[in-house]
Amino acid sequence: MEKITLTGDNLTIEEVASVAKDYTQVELSEGAEKRLRDARQLVFDLVDADFPIYGFNVGVGWNKDKKVFKEFFGQYNCNLIRSHSIGVPPWASTEQVRAIMLTRLNGMLSGCCGVAPEIPEMYTKLLNRHIHPMIPMRGSVGEADIGLLSHIGLAIIGEGNVEFGGKIMPSKEAFSLAGLEPLSLGPKDGLAIVSSNAVGAGHGALLLKDLEDFLKVADAIYALSLEGFNGNVSPLDDRNHKLRRYVGQRTVAARIRENLEGSFIYEPDRQKAVHDPLCYRDVPQIHGAVLELLQYTRERLEIQLNTTDDNPCVLLEEKTIVPSANFEPLNWVLGFEGLGVALSHISKASCLRLIKLSDPSFTNLPRFLSPAADVLCFCTVQKTYTSLDAEIRHLCNPVSMDTLSLAGGMEDMSTNAPYVVQKLDKILDNLRYIFALELIHAAQAVDYRKGRSLGKYSGAVYEKARSVIPFYDKDRNITEMIQQAHELIADGTLLSLLPRD
Amino acid sequence: MEKITLTGDNLTIEEVASVAKDYTQVELSEGAEKRLRDARQLVFDLVDADFPIYGFNVGVGWNKDKKVFKEFFGQYNCNLIRSHSIGVPPWASTEQVRAIMLTRLNGMLSGCCGVAPEIPEMYTKLLNRHIHPMIPMRGSVGEADIGLLSHIGLAIIGEGNVEFGGKIMPSKEAFSLAGLEPLSLGPKDGLAIVSSNAVGAGHGALLLKDLEDFLKVADAIYALSLEGFNGNVSPLDDRNHKLRRYVGQRTVAARIRENLEGSFIYEPDRQKAVHDPLCYRDVPQIHGAVLELLQYTRERLEIQLNTTDDNPCVLLEEKTIVPSANFEPLNWVLGFEGLGVALSHISKASCLRLIKLSDPSFTNLPRFLSPAADVLCFCTVQKTYTSLDAEIRHLCNPVSMDTLSLAGGMEDMSTNAPYVVQKLDKILDNLRYIFALELIHAAQAVDYRKGRSLGKYSGAVYEKARSVIPFYDKDRNITEMIQQAHELIADGTLLSLLPRD
Amino acid sequence: MEKITLTGDNLTIEEVASVAKDYTQVELSEGAEKRLRDARQLVFDLVDADFPIYGFNVGVGWNKDKKVFKEFFGQYNCNLIRSHSIGVPPWASTEQVRAIMLTRLNGMLSGCCGVAPEIPEMYTKLLNRHIHPMIPMRGSVGEADIGLLSHIGLAIIGEGNVEFGGKIMPSKEAFSLAGLEPLSLGPKDGLAIVSSNAVGAGHGALLLKDLEDFLKVADAIYALSLEGFNGNVSPLDDRNHKLRRYVGQRTVAARIRENLEGSFIYEPDRQKAVHDPLCYRDVPQIHGAVLELLQYTRERLEIQLNTTDDNPCVLLEEKTIVPSANFEPLNWVLGFEGLGVALSHISKASCLRLIKLSDPSFTNLPRFLSPAADVLCFCTVQKTYTSLDAEIRHLCNPVSMDTLSLAGGMEDMSTNAPYVVQKLDKILDNLRYIFALELIHAAQAVDYRKGRSLGKYSGAVYEKARSVIPFYDKDRNITEMIQQAHELIADGTLLSLLPRD
Amino acid sequence: MEKITLTGDNLTIEEVASVAKDYTQVELSEGAEKRLRDARQLVFDLVDADFPIYGFNVGVGWNKDKKVFKEFFGQYNCNLIRSHSIGVPPWASTEQVRAIMLTRLNGMLSGCCGVAPEIPEMYTKLLNRHIHPMIPMRGSVGEADIGLLSHIGLAIIGEGNVEFGGKIMPSKEAFSLAGLEPLSLGPKDGLAIVSSNAVGAGHGALLLKDLEDFLKVADAIYALSLEGFNGNVSPLDDRNHKLRRYVGQRTVAARIRENLEGSFIYEPDRQKAVHDPLCYRDVPQIHGAVLELLQYTRERLEIQLNTTDDNPCVLLEEKTIVPSANFEPLNWVLGFEGLGVALSHISKASCLRLIKLSDPSFTNLPRFLSPAADVLCFCTVQKTYTSLDAEIRHLCNPVSMDTLSLAGGMEDMSTNAPYVVQKLDKILDNLRYIFALELIHAAQAVDYRKGRSLGKYSGAVYEKARSVIPFYDKDRNITEMIQQAHELIADGTLLSLLPRD
Repeated sequence: MEKITLTGDNLTIEEVASVAKDYTQVELSEGAEKRLRDARQLVFDLVDADFPIYGFNVGVGWNKDKKVFKEFFGQYNCNLIRSHSIGVPPWASTEQVRAIMLTRLNGMLSGCCGVAPEIPEMYTKLLNRHIHPMIPMRGSVGEADIGLLSHIGLAIIGEGNVEFGGKIMPSKEAFSLAGLEPLSLGPKDGLAIVSSNAVGAGHGALLLKDLEDFLKVADAIYALSLEGFNGNVSPLDDRNHKLRRYVGQRTVAARIRENLEGSFIYEPDRQKAVHDPLCYRDVPQIHGAVLELLQYTRERLEIQLNTTDDNPCVLLEEKTIVPSANFEPLNWVLGFEGLGVALSHISKASCLRLIKLSDPSFTNLPRFLSPAADVLCFCTVQKTYTSLDAEIRHLCNPVSMDTLSLAGGMEDMSTNAPYVVQKLDKILDNLRYIFALELIHAAQAVDYRKGRSLGKYSGAVYEKARSVIPFYDKDRNITEMIQQAHELIADGTLLSLLPRD
Repeated sequence: MEKITLTGDNLTIEEVASVAKDYTQVELSEGAEKRLRDARQLVFDLVDADFPIYGFNVGVGWNKDKKVFKEFFGQYNCNLIRSHSIGVPPWASTEQVRAIMLTRLNGMLSGCCGVAPEIPEMYTKLLNRHIHPMIPMRGSVGEADIGLLSHIGLAIIGEGNVEFGGKIMPSKEAFSLAGLEPLSLGPKDGLAIVSSNAVGAGHGALLLKDLEDFLKVADAIYALSLEGFNGNVSPLDDRNHKLRRYVGQRTVAARIRENLEGSFIYEPDRQKAVHDPLCYRDVPQIHGAVLELLQYTRERLEIQLNTTDDNPCVLLEEKTIVPSANFEPLNWVLGFEGLGVALSHISKASCLRLIKLSDPSFTNLPRFLSPAADVLCFCTVQKTYTSLDAEIRHLCNPVSMDTLSLAGGMEDMSTNAPYVVQKLDKILDNLRYIFALELIHAAQAVDYRKGRSLGKYSGAVYEKARSVIPFYDKDRNITEMIQQAHELIADGTLLSLLPRD
Repeated sequence: MEKITLTGDNLTIEEVASVAKDYTQVELSEGAEKRLRDARQLVFDLVDADFPIYGFNVGVGWNKDKKVFKEFFGQYNCNLIRSHSIGVPPWASTEQVRAIMLTRLNGMLSGCCGVAPEIPEMYTKLLNRHIHPMIPMRGSVGEADIGLLSHIGLAIIGEGNVEFGGKIMPSKEAFSLAGLEPLSLGPKDGLAIVSSNAVGAGHGALLLKDLEDFLKVADAIYALSLEGFNGNVSPLDDRNHKLRRYVGQRTVAARIRENLEGSFIYEPDRQKAVHDPLCYRDVPQIHGAVLELLQYTRERLEIQLNTTDDNPCVLLEEKTIVPSANFEPLNWVLGFEGLGVALSHISKASCLRLIKLSDPSFTNLPRFLSPAADVLCFCTVQKTYTSLDAEIRHLCNPVSMDTLSLAGGMEDMSTNAPYVVQKLDKILDNLRYIFALELIHAAQAVDYRKGRSLGKYSGAVYEKARSVIPFYDKDRNITEMIQQAHELIADGTLLSLLPRD
Repeated sequence: MEKITLTGDNLTIEEVASVAKDYTQVELSEGAEKRLRDARQLVFDLVDADFPIYGFNVGVGWNKDKKVFKEFFGQYNCNLIRSHSIGVPPWASTEQVRAIMLTRLNGMLSGCCGVAPEIPEMYTKLLNRHIHPMIPMRGSVGEADIGLLSHIGLAIIGEGNVEFGGKIMPSKEAFSLAGLEPLSLGPKDGLAIVSSNAVGAGHGALLLKDLEDFLKVADAIYALSLEGFNGNVSPLDDRNHKLRRYVGQRTVAARIRENLEGSFIYEPDRQKAVHDPLCYRDVPQIHGAVLELLQYTRERLEIQLNTTDDNPCVLLEEKTIVPSANFEPLNWVLGFEGLGVALSHISKASCLRLIKLSDPSFTNLPRFLSPAADVLCFCTVQKTYTSLDAEIRHLCNPVSMDTLSLAGGMEDMSTNAPYVVQKLDKILDNLRYIFALELIHAAQAVDYRKGRSLGKYSGAVYEKARSVIPFYDKDRNITEMIQQAHELIADGTLLSLLPRD
């Protein structure tokens, strides 16, 4: 993408990924800038209001009964930023920092925030000039990530550290190198910076995009695996999927057929069994179910990206500021929890296919796909995918409801959103390793089916894999092969071979 | 409902509940009957086909390589029913049996099944004459409930037991009393009876209807609880919910406002805190998130109810029978898994409200809502809801992926669908107990806010509760009160007071 | 056993089982009776103490700041009992009620309780005359089961219901029939009745005894299974187990060898594989690990049974009453949590053996142990044990830490002890079903190894099984067979065939 | 320690920690060397045996039916090492590598291994010269860590990478720099290197030592916390603990009293509440229960460290090699699973104490321990410990039984031992963060109790903390403070202040 104009209203996960990973430039739309100015004016108009406004002229959390006087807004808001910096490593990756900042920035544009317009402008500058505040990823209970987003605030007021040009340095130093000046904070600015689910949501947006991409690659690797297995194509038959009416299932079957266009696999072969094991037969159903839950989650996360979670919430039309509980992100968090469980099924099916691919009674190929009696080949590596699958099983346990009552019992519900996203991210990476192994096995199996033409895209995947990882003709270090195949999946190489939507 | 005409195409969970609980009569549509006849004819045309058809002229599961000869179809199919009867108690309740039979019956009408038309007719008769085969609820891995549905088959061939007129008796005896004759089975009939997810799906349909009903009651009890708490109404303000765009959240807020129509709670009261605890504030967000996931699950379950999961699958237009993996129910099973996690949030919020309602520092009411210094009142009962919440936390752990490779590795994926539904059912019942306690507490709290008018529907709920459970003026057996309040929720009494959709 | 004399000091789980199941009579030792009197006298001496004693002259829980005056002790303690009756069904079985009462009774004898001696005497009478208060099993957070034990108190003061002579009736009625008078309560008596972990501990004692018994039967069924499998005996070789030094492992191997004394399995057989699958080879290691954890748990539970968990705690020698937190049962609760995980390994191994027993490539026996090509035999029943194993996997998740802060934050830690015990009980019963299936399979497999002599005890088990469940020669209702085999395990029939320790 | 002489029989977790962290030199005892030579001789004597020996003259795993000829032993064993290198990052830390190598080395000394004596000698050299093979930590199912230990083998034969002098380099290069020669492998050497649980056990030994150390520090921080809270000392009273008979509980209470020797906390103070919240009261019970389970686990792990898990197993006295399943590590794995659950209770109690320390209604100190009305202080940091506790809750779910059937169904049981250890390690580190926060809070609270003398060791802990982290007088970056306090716990600083056992 060239440049993204943020409106506060229509940010997609693709755009988040583009800004985060490709450093696409961002700018604010005119409408967004106007809303920022209008909302800020309203805040100033209300400063003298005689009713208490949370985090504005009274304190936050349990301190909501303490008045904050106008003359101390600057100091109060800086102190808020400092005392809200309560994180625990690991630190966010650069792309995570960018996704988080973009998410918070877009959220500010709704006109419900009332932040000083200089602050979203600063976020824009930091993104465009690649100054990345150091943000710890732990320390939020997922009911607004206030203790982590504060670290962006630290950078903005010239405190804390940032990553700039590949180095970690004091924020002040980076600002100076980049010709920027730290900002002072005014009323509500502290809360505007921290009171958002942007850590979980920004990371989550990256992750959903990664997952969508992965699922396409997974379908292609499955297609190659089916060729290696010399499996039945009847489970891909659209007539069955049409009858069942599940959109995701039908989409996946179509994608797999597209991958297999022109493949020998469609040729009649009396040697094939009546049925293949369910791990091969159920793939449209399983991947399809995941696709539908992913779509569900994406719709809800994109609402999060494009609506306000500010508390209090500025209502421009009504010219007022009202309390809000829209920082409660349970709606999309449930999607991420569910996706973990969903992916465990994809994982299990892939592992079981790997086991079958190693078993002559299913493939009529050598045991462990070994080229010779004295080559051990893919024997021990069974433990690799099995142990990764066990980790996935463990990680997909729920955690969103495990919390304590805080702030004198006032903050008694939360979602652990950032951790929920983080565990799904680990699950996805484990899944990449498992499919890396399915790729290695499938390519080896296919090599035993010489002279047979592969599918249009499964063939392309095969060729790319073989350009990096040669046929396993004698025992060698498999640890290295796994890393190579994982990289093909993780760095987008395989995705780039596949048809665009 | 008067009578339901089954088409195989448009059964709803409301209709399942009506047939299961209210004994609504059923009949088959003409179109459905024609499809049954056509499909059966096709089966006979294909009997002599020289290619093997799973479970038809060859065996099932691992025995799919064994040929079955025409002359042995009857015996083969009876033996299939017997050897597939492998269940473990508990036995399904009568209403579960009815839901399961209806679900399987409707599935047969797609024209994809090829069953002898006498069989679905028999299901109709059994439903309409209230003969209920004894079905054990455990013994399925949730990849078609073949080992449980077989017990319907047992009854149909005059074996096993049924419940009839409140008594458990041999099937033969009940058939004789009702003037029915057991059936003989022909080709594919055994599989047609067992090869379906009707146990999980039928129970699941009942459960989703129960859950929808419960959520309405939960909103009403929450409304009364808010009155008892004298809480803020700002979290119900539609302006916030409109901004957030989550349909479920907005719906719930509207429902709660409807419940509170005319309540004192809208009167200005300077004594109220700026904010209430999140367990009170977040209800539209939390209940709304559950509502959306419920809708997601319902849509997918209703596809299950109205499409074929038969394997092999008769394709009437193409005049063929093809293998199918549409018995893989993961799509809707993921919904049920997710709902467990979702409900744990509703549970936690209710428990935390109960704790707050007992705490003078939040309510300005007596500690534990006790009417006098020497009355212990709702002190120990805190442990009741807390322990029920812990059970919910435990039950909502996932289980769908925990399975083993069966049938020589052929049946290596499954979903534990029936158990997933069963654990959600337990969660729902625990939740009824917890809201029973919220009802008891809310009514007690409201009694301290004398002379203030309650909401239109929250008031109706209050009156009904008080007609059964008087004010707690001195210490008495609370175990009994809990059962009384639970019954008001479980038997539909409270629901009947609330507005229809 | 004849009659058990309770000392408060040396109660074993065997004795609990004997009183609970066999209605063995109980009496109090002289020493115990003296301690009861002495402690009671001390209580009276301290009634006028000017310092507050929890639940004695001040209230309980959050009400600990409220004074209770002497003249109201009777009423206060009755109200305490009533308001502490806050349970939720299911109701305890008769044997559970007896175990719970015995546990509380023995705990009272330490001299630390200070209860009126009439009360433990009443427990003795109720046990000996078979009057069983109705106790709900849910409603405790496992930090003393105060809301459940209260139901014994209800009965004692002539309220609530009891089971007597197989009927449920009002307590008053049963007392009258049995010629007993309800009691009045004095100072501390309410707390003395409820403030104990006797529900979890009493049920837990029964369960540990059941588990010990089960493990012996499991070893014997495994021995028969090994014969059916014609497996290797080298994994039983004491030389290996001696080297490894794990006591439990060595014990189990010895037990299995004892079961197999004289078996054909020790005869050399060149056809046997070098190794058997781990599910057969690892049994001494797996069962042995469970045995050691069971022993760990038993030691800690027996400390619970024989020491005080009263709060406050009477110190006879020091002539004082002190606060105590010995109601915290985490020590033994951790054992029960761990045993769930441990048993999941036993379950998994048994299921995998069942799969192997059905597989000709491992057994050289017919597929699914079927006697003829057209008999389906143990095909579908694979799903039975697999689904029971999935339930075990689900149930063994931990729950002890999932709780809320109660009583104004004072009671903020708990263990969910009763539920932890209940889930382990379900796990054990599932395991009985799984081993019932292993028994059925093993007997069938053994029948194919005609003319070969079985082991001393494995043979006895085989004979008993065959006396109830004949060889599966043609397809029949397996649901019934499963119940029959389960009963042989659950009712002690098989255990009675095995050598005593 | 000066130097450790390995006998194969008496290695302790303290010695593992000393070699791993302090680079203590190791040597083999004379007896061990003799056993190595004798066992090796026996292997050669048996090479020509006409019966197959697993992994020796026949293949491993599913290839156990393939013969290996004498002349190919060298190549076979190298290929075994290569094809068994199937790991996935992260890479083991240097101290983990050392613990793993030492564990495997000690295990070889039993005389049951039959490895070429040059190999254990090489392990000794690598340890003493600080050459550390790169070992990936994922890829084992915990039934011997064969796919990870292989990487030590790679280094020994001059392949793969090692860490040497802080740099990662090819093994060959490091050997050359250190004046060492790679080895050739003979019969059984491949299996001898890989067939062991040394990854899980070595890491586990380090972890248990860390946990023991941590628990001492935790007791000391609790003691300081009790002083900050001005809590009751009655829960420390030995009279109660003596009555309860739990050794761990009594030990912990004694340790806490020792920490508090001379503290003001023992002075009478009428202002104290009758009871403190259970999170303060229950510490001896909770920490004590953990201590007992730790002891249980330690005993079993030390058996693992000092007995053979080799398969096949050389029996020196009997002059034979027998198959063995002593690689099944479930016994100690169950301990590690249980410790996760156990630690979640410690975590929860600490978090709840932190909440109480921030609450004036419990402490009579300023809210959030804030020094002034406009200082937010420890408000937001509540989310830090709460989220870390949620992670612990998630991580402590079990995983040992989640596995698949591998090697043609032969390797169908496993334990996920390395992952079980890894998750406990994460739990422990989270716990360090939580107690870091308790230290920060306790020191702040103590500062408000001016002029009062602290306990002997709690005071030392306070002084050390204050030397690094000053009183929180105005809002500052708390993220930094957390790291500083965590370091005091993690690097042994606080432990060094406490009394030795």
